[in-house]
Amino acid sequence: MTSLFERLRAIVGAEACLTRSDELFVYECDGLTLDPVRPSAVVLPRSTEEVARVVRVCSEAGRSFVPRGAGTGLSGGAHPVEGSIVIECSRMNRILEVCPEDRIAVVQPGVVNAELSRAVRTHGLFYAPDPSSQQACTIGGNVAENSGGPHTLKYGTTTNHVLALEMVLADGSVMRLGDASGFAPGYDLVGAAVGSEGTIGIVTEATVRLTPIPESVETLLVIFPDVVSACTAVGGIIRSGLVPAALEILDRRTIAAVEASVYAAGLPREAGAVLIAELDGPACALRAQVDRVTALAREAGASEVRVAHDEAERAQFWKARKGAFGAMGRLAPDLYVHDAVVPRARLPEILARVCEIGDRYGLMLSNVFHAGDGNLHPNISFDRRDPSQLERVMAAGAEILETCVAAGGVVTGEHGVGTEKRDFIGLVFGEADLAAMLRVRDAFDPRKTFE
Amino acid sequence: MTSLFERLRAIVGAEACLTRSDELFVYECDGLTLDPVRPSAVVLPRSTEEVARVVRVCSEAGRSFVPRGAGTGLSGGAHPVEGSIVIECSRMNRILEVCPEDRIAVVQPGVVNAELSRAVRTHGLFYAPDPSSQQACTIGGNVAENSGGPHTLKYGTTTNHVLALEMVLADGSVMRLGDASGFAPGYDLVGAAVGSEGTIGIVTEATVRLTPIPESVETLLVIFPDVVSACTAVGGIIRSGLVPAALEILDRRTIAAVEASVYAAGLPREAGAVLIAELDGPACALRAQVDRVTALAREAGASEVRVAHDEAERAQFWKARKGAFGAMGRLAPDLYVHDAVVPRARLPEILARVCEIGDRYGLMLSNVFHAGDGNLHPNISFDRRDPSQLERVMAAGAEILETCVAAGGVVTGEHGVGTEKRDFIGLVFGEADLAAMLRVRDAFDPRKTFE
Repeated sequence: MTSLFERLRAIVGAEACLTRSDELFVYECDGLTLDPVRPSAVVLPRSTEEVARVVRVCSEAGRSFVPRGAGTGLSGGAHPVEGSIVIECSRMNRILEVCPEDRIAVVQPGVVNAELSRAVRTHGLFYAPDPSSQQACTIGGNVAENSGGPHTLKYGTTTNHVLALEMVLADGSVMRLGDASGFAPGYDLVGAAVGSEGTIGIVTEATVRLTPIPESVETLLVIFPDVVSACTAVGGIIRSGLVPAALEILDRRTIAAVEASVYAAGLPREAGAVLIAELDGPACALRAQVDRVTALAREAGASEVRVAHDEAERAQFWKARKGAFGAMGRLAPDLYVHDAVVPRARLPEILARVCEIGDRYGLMLSNVFHAGDGNLHPNISFDRRDPSQLERVMAAGAEILETCVAAGGVVTGEHGVGTEKRDFIGLVFGEADLAAMLRVRDAFDPRKTFE
Repeated sequence: MTSLFERLRAIVGAEACLTRSDELFVYECDGLTLDPVRPSAVVLPRSTEEVARVVRVCSEAGRSFVPRGAGTGLSGGAHPVEGSIVIECSRMNRILEVCPEDRIAVVQPGVVNAELSRAVRTHGLFYAPDPSSQQACTIGGNVAENSGGPHTLKYGTTTNHVLALEMVLADGSVMRLGDASGFAPGYDLVGAAVGSEGTIGIVTEATVRLTPIPESVETLLVIFPDVVSACTAVGGIIRSGLVPAALEILDRRTIAAVEASVYAAGLPREAGAVLIAELDGPACALRAQVDRVTALAREAGASEVRVAHDEAERAQFWKARKGAFGAMGRLAPDLYVHDAVVPRARLPEILARVCEIGDRYGLMLSNVFHAGDGNLHPNISFDRRDPSQLERVMAAGAEILETCVAAGGVVTGEHGVGTEKRDFIGLVFGEADLAAMLRVRDAFDPRKTFE
């Protein structure tokens, strides 16, 4: 009998089927570095047909398999389980079609997020979802995790930009969902598939919406004495009817880490919090909006409002925000980027409690978050080689999630459930809810329902 | 043994349980007047609890039931079947909560669409989905049908504005889907429930997104010699990167019908087509956009561009559009409003074929459509008392749908499948697709899965 590996090699070619221990090492985990597990093999298919055949072979052999994009996910969505086959889609990286008239693009799952925006720029269009990892992460992974980003506030998450999908199901059959027109009849299963984290199928093609590039952008960096006043400003801006493209807050500890790193952006180290507010739209309208945001920020207690004068200054503001995670790399070998959502109005109170939890466990905890969405990212810097630290990190994380849920929040904003939150999903769903979800999952698994 | 009617009366009260033939008459059909069927009874519950108890009683008695909102649907989504119980939700018409800070409202299903926008206007907010029937139709029905409207082009359909739902399932159990934050973990089943046309459950509460009222609106009425040049203008406007709030076209026959009616708006009767283009956003930016649309329209062959000078003139332009269906009431006792979507670029060609089909069957067919979305509404005026006419109406309708699907389109844009398109769903879905959808439906039916 032909071995599983031989069958996989026959499908993707020997050079696209990794089985040596040194080759498998990087596939032990994704952006969540806890609990690495080495897979049995990694295959790198080049087409839907190859993905389907790989899945069929694994399915027949009773071998579990895990789809993987760029491996930038933060919740362990691409973590292998013992003995599994990783199906890595990075070689399926072609933009198959761009239709400026219909403002859509058809892409393979391995297309890098930022690459798509670059490719359609000449048409005056961009792909709106912008995870912080957008220079590396791929559309297939974004679809699986329903990725968001700093501009989610105005543009929504991945699900708002996916019109149709081609997916390979658990038995290797190929399913198409949705329609490029956005008007597919029947149940809207594209929505259910986006964010399903690989539990329904493997994305092999996506038809996505492209968005006209706004005529103009204004970026403000606002200094506050503390995080409470920064949150008050965010509440005031939303209440005023403005729709900013982004409202991001960095707390005191994050500012210190950023300024001590290569991402230093000239933030005042004595600041209690920094708010980055971005406005986009017609140039003539932005001046009044900038004035409005400035006034609301001052009213909330801002000590300084800087408006970027040019693209270079704007990039510098964002460097502080986007470099925050990198900056924390200096503090400790490991970083646990948490992800939870709370009602916007309760942000100040929850942030205080999150910091208190970090302190109580003796951990280095800082916050950088999508304030406009109420989407928190408490970041814990630690060293996983120290078992006592690891234990405290996990205990503090659990307490943070419980605190957010008790405040009317949910356990993940944009990172997904993955292996990370598997044990916490019970905080928001009862047994009946989970049973209903499993029935939906089974509806997509022809092996279970048809046998 | 207590009779079914007695049990229903015990739940909702005698005055909210209609069983007399004269009372049941208006519930024989909805906005689709073909194939009326009288139900056994109509109940008008006032709470989720009452809906759940009614469903439980019907379910135990093996009696089918049909939820109904205002009955304005055009695809027969609220049509009773023989012997069924209609569950009419119009008495559940309270706005339970408005939170301007989070831009959300929690409403019961019987709240009238336009009523919600009126109620939140003082906060500078509105509820964006605007079906033409918005003065009468209810949010519950909008959710069931995923209703769109003229402003779908910019604001999306109902599904883009629903964050969470409470539904009563087929066994009378109550399920909650989604989260007011828009960040619910797990499968996005709100999306699957919106537009599921009552096949999954009965909406008893909806948490919806509210949108800031745009600062300013400009409305243009553009006259074209023919429908092809009007469609060319629409293509040019979309390609230019503009995002109009609405792009609506009325064809020659619709113009004639409107001008002969009380909805007369001073449209030139010799015009081949009229385009209504609406732009909204910051006041200072709209002047340039109006100029751009004007230039693109002239380039495509427009003979005249009128820009509304005030709210009164704007209302007059829209009167022509929104009164089009009413105007056709003068032409014949019945009106069949068709609904299909084609790729925008193929609009001119498909419209010519649709008109040819109408002519060939000797029918009075006119077109008024959401051109920006490629969403056609071929309208056939007829008299259903004449069996030959009815037969031709149905045959022409089938041919129109087949033509749209052959052009890469789909069988419904915003009206839903209902009883109307039940037999045409096979044009876009294969048996495997339909089987998959039934499995999803079963996932929501605890009676099937748990027994």
